[in-house]
Amino acid sequence: MNNTEKIACAVKDAAIFAASSPEDNRNRALLKAAELLSERRAEILAVNAADMSAAEKNGIARPMLKRLALNDNKLDSLITGLRDLVELPDPNGKVRFARQLDDGLVLKCISCPIGVIGVVFEARPEALVQIASLCIKSGNGAILKGGSEALNSNRVLFDIMITAARESGLPENCLALLESREQISELLACDKYVDLLIPRGSNSFVRYIMDNTNIPVMGHAAGVCHVYVDEHADPVKAARIVCDAKTQYPAACNAAETLLLHKSIAGSFFKEYDRIKDEFPKITLRAVGDICGYTGCEQGSEDDLGREFSDNVLAVKVVSSVEEAIAHINRYGSKHTDSIVTENDDAAELFFRLVDSAGVYRNCSTRFADGFRYGFGAEVGISTSKIHARGPVGLDGLMTYKYILIGEGHIVGDYASGVKSFKHVDMIF
Amino acid sequence: MNNTEKIACAVKDAAIFAASSPEDNRNRALLKAAELLSERRAEILAVNAADMSAAEKNGIARPMLKRLALNDNKLDSLITGLRDLVELPDPNGKVRFARQLDDGLVLKCISCPIGVIGVVFEARPEALVQIASLCIKSGNGAILKGGSEALNSNRVLFDIMITAARESGLPENCLALLESREQISELLACDKYVDLLIPRGSNSFVRYIMDNTNIPVMGHAAGVCHVYVDEHADPVKAARIVCDAKTQYPAACNAAETLLLHKSIAGSFFKEYDRIKDEFPKITLRAVGDICGYTGCEQGSEDDLGREFSDNVLAVKVVSSVEEAIAHINRYGSKHTDSIVTENDDAAELFFRLVDSAGVYRNCSTRFADGFRYGFGAEVGISTSKIHARGPVGLDGLMTYKYILIGEGHIVGDYASGVKSFKHVDMIF
Repeated sequence: MNNTEKIACAVKDAAIFAASSPEDNRNRALLKAAELLSERRAEILAVNAADMSAAEKNGIARPMLKRLALNDNKLDSLITGLRDLVELPDPNGKVRFARQLDDGLVLKCISCPIGVIGVVFEARPEALVQIASLCIKSGNGAILKGGSEALNSNRVLFDIMITAARESGLPENCLALLESREQISELLACDKYVDLLIPRGSNSFVRYIMDNTNIPVMGHAAGVCHVYVDEHADPVKAARIVCDAKTQYPAACNAAETLLLHKSIAGSFFKEYDRIKDEFPKITLRAVGDICGYTGCEQGSEDDLGREFSDNVLAVKVVSSVEEAIAHINRYGSKHTDSIVTENDDAAELFFRLVDSAGVYRNCSTRFADGFRYGFGAEVGISTSKIHARGPVGLDGLMTYKYILIGEGHIVGDYASGVKSFKHVDMIF
Repeated sequence: MNNTEKIACAVKDAAIFAASSPEDNRNRALLKAAELLSERRAEILAVNAADMSAAEKNGIARPMLKRLALNDNKLDSLITGLRDLVELPDPNGKVRFARQLDDGLVLKCISCPIGVIGVVFEARPEALVQIASLCIKSGNGAILKGGSEALNSNRVLFDIMITAARESGLPENCLALLESREQISELLACDKYVDLLIPRGSNSFVRYIMDNTNIPVMGHAAGVCHVYVDEHADPVKAARIVCDAKTQYPAACNAAETLLLHKSIAGSFFKEYDRIKDEFPKITLRAVGDICGYTGCEQGSEDDLGREFSDNVLAVKVVSSVEEAIAHINRYGSKHTDSIVTENDDAAELFFRLVDSAGVYRNCSTRFADGFRYGFGAEVGISTSKIHARGPVGLDGLMTYKYILIGEGHIVGDYASGVKSFKHVDMIF
């Protein structure tokens, strides 16, 4: 056993007990963590400043530096987030259904934590607190590996989370922190101990994780979202939605990457777009194919379709029907979030039914795809997989269930021979 | 694109439309399939007889031959199964929750099929009908690869299912049949088109599938189930449960493989066991370590712990506490199904909370772990994974969900700037 395996095995053993820990202990741990974050604020900010200046010396890119930085605002919202999480109902131990199979033989399906969650994230140290707290609330164990740039920040934040957990009666090893890059590949091999991996970072990083482990992976590599402006769209709504979906945070996975325009709306859309575009950051439009003579575009190419620009760049393509738009999205999209702008109910209904994405929207920006905006309290990430959790993933995505069957000496032979037969009566609980 | 990819791509395109097909069409397809099975009974049995005699000539093992054989009984229960499935509620398009995020901005979470299910099964041709019918009911597309021994039986059964589907208005390519062995590895590479794989067959076969694809796999490789006879067990219940759990169908994945006996119950357990054992097929007990002087056992070894015998052989080990039994099960088990025999509520409660398996039972046989016995109407298989579906998997395990968000031109910028704020009011639907 290498050291990472030993750590994973210890977290696995602890996770069994975390799963059956009282709700009170788990909530107390969250409140304690909020307290410690507040008390140790100066220390956290000092250590983070040291990480920042080391990162600057190493010539780290500006957007990365921005993600690495902690400040009073970010700490305040972490503290609020922890307190909000306490208020959410316990997701653990809920009876999902109960059924009497026969006299004296009762089946119950009960929610329980998945077990050990491995989280590998880049840069943003507050992710450590957010994810550890969701794992504590749900009764999962967690193995956390943060970006090396945030080494010192992560150490302090981890110390706060594990201290809060231990002081509240949770098992000693319910959380673990990995620090070296080599431990990532060792963690990917721990399929005996780790039940689910959640990678958060660049596309290539997530893709690397997905391609190199037998452990189920939850998350998304690409975020290629579309806005389709239908022939029955209101151009005023359409132009604002397009600008927001692209520019509100262009590096986010739920930002729009391709604009599909119905040929009969293109003229009035561009007219409105030109009228309001200066209210938003400037977008570089890249036309793929003929776009009805509009001259405000760069010349794009087929390669721009299905491409994630992560910048204020938007591919534009003209289509002849809602069916063509749907087929385009299902072919080039990443099953993340796609929006139709239309005043026509039939077009919207068709779009809802046939677009094969986690989020399918009408008359609103793709940027709404987010756990906080959905009212989940918090999110561990956004899943583009269709198995288990899909879209923004909150506490529910960290749960599974087990079947409890309670008998009085019941054997299957009696049912196979016909001496007894099943009743299957659903029970109210 | 190789031929398998072309097939998978066509099923993917069809699956989008199957997902949004009316419930009536899907139910009509099931009734039509039941009709055709009945009408073409003689043809099915003749073709199956040809498969059987070819298999016999090729010297195929007897248990495999038994699985290959179709007869009137099996066909009758397939027909009944199809009609029962029609009666089950439509799992598709159910609103799981609805929430008003703000004025005019409504989020709905709606159940929908996963998409394309790839099923690779050995021998039993009736699996083709069972799985295809679950996929039809749930609105999934399916790619089916059966055992080569059942080639002709599978062809007729597939023809019945696809004819029934097409005649009921389902898309032309909602089901596909693969016939050659090489197509399995090609199918495993179709992660662009196949959303979930369900392998049904030997442990090594399932393990091979799991190790050679990026597509999520649902099912189980090993089935290592335990019965733990607690110090507070009723020996009469215990002896019958152990005999049933081992012998009722020893090759099944939910058969018991290891008996754990509390040291203080061993004597009275063996006394009762010797009294009743002749009512059941003979079990070879393999003692691992000291088993309190009972002489009716072969000498076993550590290698027998966690071993799936698939035969009337049972490892026996003595433990000193319920905690030791739980730790043993979590270490050697396969997270399938494990049962405690006890009259003590505290021991049962501890067992329920800490055993990390899909099924955790009290005072009944592990052989109850089955979709029909649970009242699911049918099952596609049993999952020992903790992600997505767990335990016996029925229609629900073939579903996922999508988020529908309906606005009136809502953009995220208004919420980021504080012009608007979220209301998050859950809606009754």
